Amino acid sequence: MADKVLALAGGVGGAKLALGLARILEPDELIIAVNTGDDDCFHGLNVSPDLDTVMYTLAGLANPETGWGLAGDTFQALEMLRRYGANTWFNLGDRDLATHIRRTQLLREGANLSQATAQLCRSLGVRHQVVPMSDDPVSTVLTTSLGELPMQQYFVQHKSEPKVTAVHYRGAEQALPAPALAQALSDADVVVLCPSNPILSLGPMLAIPGIRQGLLNAAGHTVVVSPLVGGAALRGPAAKLMGELGHQISSLGVARMYLGLCDIFVIDHQDAALAAEIDALGMRAVAESIIMNTEDDKIALARRVLDLGGW
Amino acid sequence: MADKVLALAGGVGGAKLALGLARILEPDELIIAVNTGDDDCFHGLNVSPDLDTVMYTLAGLANPETGWGLAGDTFQALEMLRRYGANTWFNLGDRDLATHIRRTQLLREGANLSQATAQLCRSLGVRHQVVPMSDDPVSTVLTTSLGELPMQQYFVQHKSEPKVTAVHYRGAEQALPAPALAQALSDADVVVLCPSNPILSLGPMLAIPGIRQGLLNAAGHTVVVSPLVGGAALRGPAAKLMGELGHQISSLGVARMYLGLCDIFVIDHQDAALAAEIDALGMRAVAESIIMNTEDDKIALARRVLDLGGW
Repeated sequence: MADKVLALAGGVGGAKLALGLARILEPDELIIAVNTGDDDCFHGLNVSPDLDTVMYTLAGLANPETGWGLAGDTFQALEMLRRYGANTWFNLGDRDLATHIRRTQLLREGANLSQATAQLCRSLGVRHQVVPMSDDPVSTVLTTSLGELPMQQYFVQHKSEPKVTAVHYRGAEQALPAPALAQALSDADVVVLCPSNPILSLGPMLAIPGIRQGLLNAAGHTVVVSPLVGGAALRGPAAKLMGELGHQISSLGVARMYLGLCDIFVIDHQDAALAAEIDALGMRAVAESIIMNTEDDKIALARRVLDLGGW
Repeated sequence: MADKVLALAGGVGGAKLALGLARILEPDELIIAVNTGDDDCFHGLNVSPDLDTVMYTLAGLANPETGWGLAGDTFQALEMLRRYGANTWFNLGDRDLATHIRRTQLLREGANLSQATAQLCRSLGVRHQVVPMSDDPVSTVLTTSLGELPMQQYFVQHKSEPKVTAVHYRGAEQALPAPALAQALSDADVVVLCPSNPILSLGPMLAIPGIRQGLLNAAGHTVVVSPLVGGAALRGPAAKLMGELGHQISSLGVARMYLGLCDIFVIDHQDAALAAEIDALGMRAVAESIIMNTEDDKIALARRVLDLGGW
């Protein structure tokens, strides 16, 4: 069996580094496990936003402006669903809808999410293995000033505006890692935690006992890339949420959340001053250029991460 | 309660006369019961082709070139479903797909087909009552040279080409007329059998014992408009199918299929020579212009049908 790199990823930020890794590694050398805590049901269809973002990104079909959805997608069906009185705050393009229709059909016919994901990825020409964190349902629910909100309602419908006092990962305690992820956790030579929201993207994964335990037991290096640069998130509500939940809004705050779970923590050059404090947590802090705008940026960071992991 | 006209309709041909009737009658004066023997499941979604054709026609949204589907619809989702390896021989536009997504969701949430249809129609501004022939599943299955084929496979996938030796309406014996149809069968002052395929569109309805009995017991006039003109169907496989199943391919052949179920049979002027033989069946044959190209044609024929029914 080939040596393996395991990447844990959320949505857009995670997909960027995953793409960089996929440009360097062979299909049998990389497995990308993706957050499904945001999965939800819209119009009776099973939607897996982070899985789709990673899949579309690796397939070269992602919308470059948003990072999610399909480039050039249209919204005719959604407009009609609105006319039928459906709640249409969650943007679903016409071609994107086909993904959810197909996934829902596969699941109803008895496939698990790992199998459905594999089939969708194969159809789109994705050669690297993409798996959900779990085939069991896990739902990230935020306790907010507007009451309990599932992740997509908080993030999309309410634009991450409500103040958050707690986050729960419903079902995580009982969930098992997807079989391919469980295997990779025991086999991987390098584990990469992509620069995803530590609370909403990697949080649900780490709340699954089998994944947390697998990281604690990891034989090789575990490399984290910080999702924060200079005290701000590169995208999304990570910084706001960390503040509301009492975390320090910095790469140091993020590093504290991964205590014991990683040994190399990659921060941006802008945050080099934090290196000593991160080192003091028992990790090795490494300052790099972690902002990924171009595909070259993604490949360069992926290459550096693999070097650091001893690949 | 207002006096009522009950129209029984299949797809495109039936929808034409239904539109004419709807232009003349108030919403509380007309109920249109529609064939659901072609209903099928595509990509896990419940599709009701004839109900949709009638609904889109009455909403003014139908594609004028095909008679079915929505004017100006796009096919992005279908193209993507094809990429996912789905069978995409059944044309489903993006906006049309929203109808099936919504219907499927309503049905899964516990609505019956009458309720789901009412809700869809209301959203599209259809003011007249459109109901399925039954809330119970009935499936028109053709025994053909290619084996048993459900109606849409025969009609769309195989373009009505296979030779047909028998037609079955699975589930019809056990099906009940939809509640609003059952009521209308006992109340209606006039019943109109629209110019739809007697085997594939009206056949499934007449195979439901409660509908057949309701027509036999009808208090007022029952007026049929022939779907054939000069020995040919105005559209669809009616003529070919009648021939293969041993019926005479003419309005006389159609009239024989409705023996005892109607008292006025409207044929085209071109078929006036058949009038005496149709009269001999115990009906009154009336020659009219029954080809409906323009909306004025539809209204004129509807008005004549209502006159004949004693409205």
